[in-house]
Amino acid sequence: MLTEQQKRTFMIAAIEEAKMAKTVGEVPIGAVVVHDGQIIGRGHNMRERFQDVTYHAEMLAITEACEALHSWRLEDCQLFVTLEPCMMCSGAIVNARLEAVYYAAKDPKAGTVDSLYHLLNDDRFNHQVRVESGLMEEACSQLLKQFFRAIRQKRRAAKRLSK
Amino acid sequence: MLTEQQKRTFMIAAIEEAKMAKTVGEVPIGAVVVHDGQIIGRGHNMRERFQDVTYHAEMLAITEACEALHSWRLEDCQLFVTLEPCMMCSGAIVNARLEAVYYAAKDPKAGTVDSLYHLLNDDRFNHQVRVESGLMEEACSQLLKQFFRAIRQKRRAAKRLSK
Repeated sequence: MLTEQQKRTFMIAAIEEAKMAKTVGEVPIGAVVVHDGQIIGRGHNMRERFQDVTYHAEMLAITEACEALHSWRLEDCQLFVTLEPCMMCSGAIVNARLEAVYYAAKDPKAGTVDSLYHLLNDDRFNHQVRVESGLMEEACSQLLKQFFRAIRQKRRAAKRLSK
Repeated sequence: MLTEQQKRTFMIAAIEEAKMAKTVGEVPIGAVVVHDGQIIGRGHNMRERFQDVTYHAEMLAITEACEALHSWRLEDCQLFVTLEPCMMCSGAIVNARLEAVYYAAKDPKAGTVDSLYHLLNDDRFNHQVRVESGLMEEACSQLLKQFFRAIRQKRRAAKRLSK
């Protein structure tokens, strides 16, 4: 089992990934996959840069973790992510048989772990995933809010200039 | 709108992809993405070969289509796939805003389009997808059944030899 200190350390690593997304103008979401107390996969949202709809933070972290373990099964691994996973990422998490998911902020519009569905805990699938939410929620939530606020401000400024 | 002949042609292309998976020992599932009546993305299951849990037929076809259109939005595109999509692929389909999905055989254990959920038609998400199922169902279903029958036969033969 991970200690509270370890959980915090891994969520900070996910936040660092989210910040990397922000610096290149992507929605700041980050994720890491942990195995035996070590980070073996990292990812941040790169959907816009690569114009690939599958390039969510969790997907990229999971792919990197599969490469590290030479296995599509991530049974003893934990995923840390700054925002509640969407349907696609929830599916990848179940398919990879991850042991646990720790997410920070809820996503009421597209989150399928707690908000719209409980897809990680449906016993009709061949795997269920332990979930902990709310770890460093405020920091992750603020990161997203500031990002969208800055975008709105830029748009307003552009409108004023174009008048 | 696609004609019945076009739909059949595109499902045959998806079946050809599924057969490619089979020749390399992968579960035979194939998919194509269509735009303006042309195939712009193809994919077959490659999970075992690359040991990557995200390498489902639909995901690879969607990524190829995004590359072709230089866009993560596949709004005017249709996906043809030999088996009902799982949760991960359903998520990618909604995220990419595909116009329609045509799938052949149902997947009662993991399908999330009709079998376990109706994830492509939940109006709480920002996009819904038109679904048609059953096109060339028997051919796709037989392909999967033959594949798993051959695996069971191989296992039995191996057991007999090891006695």
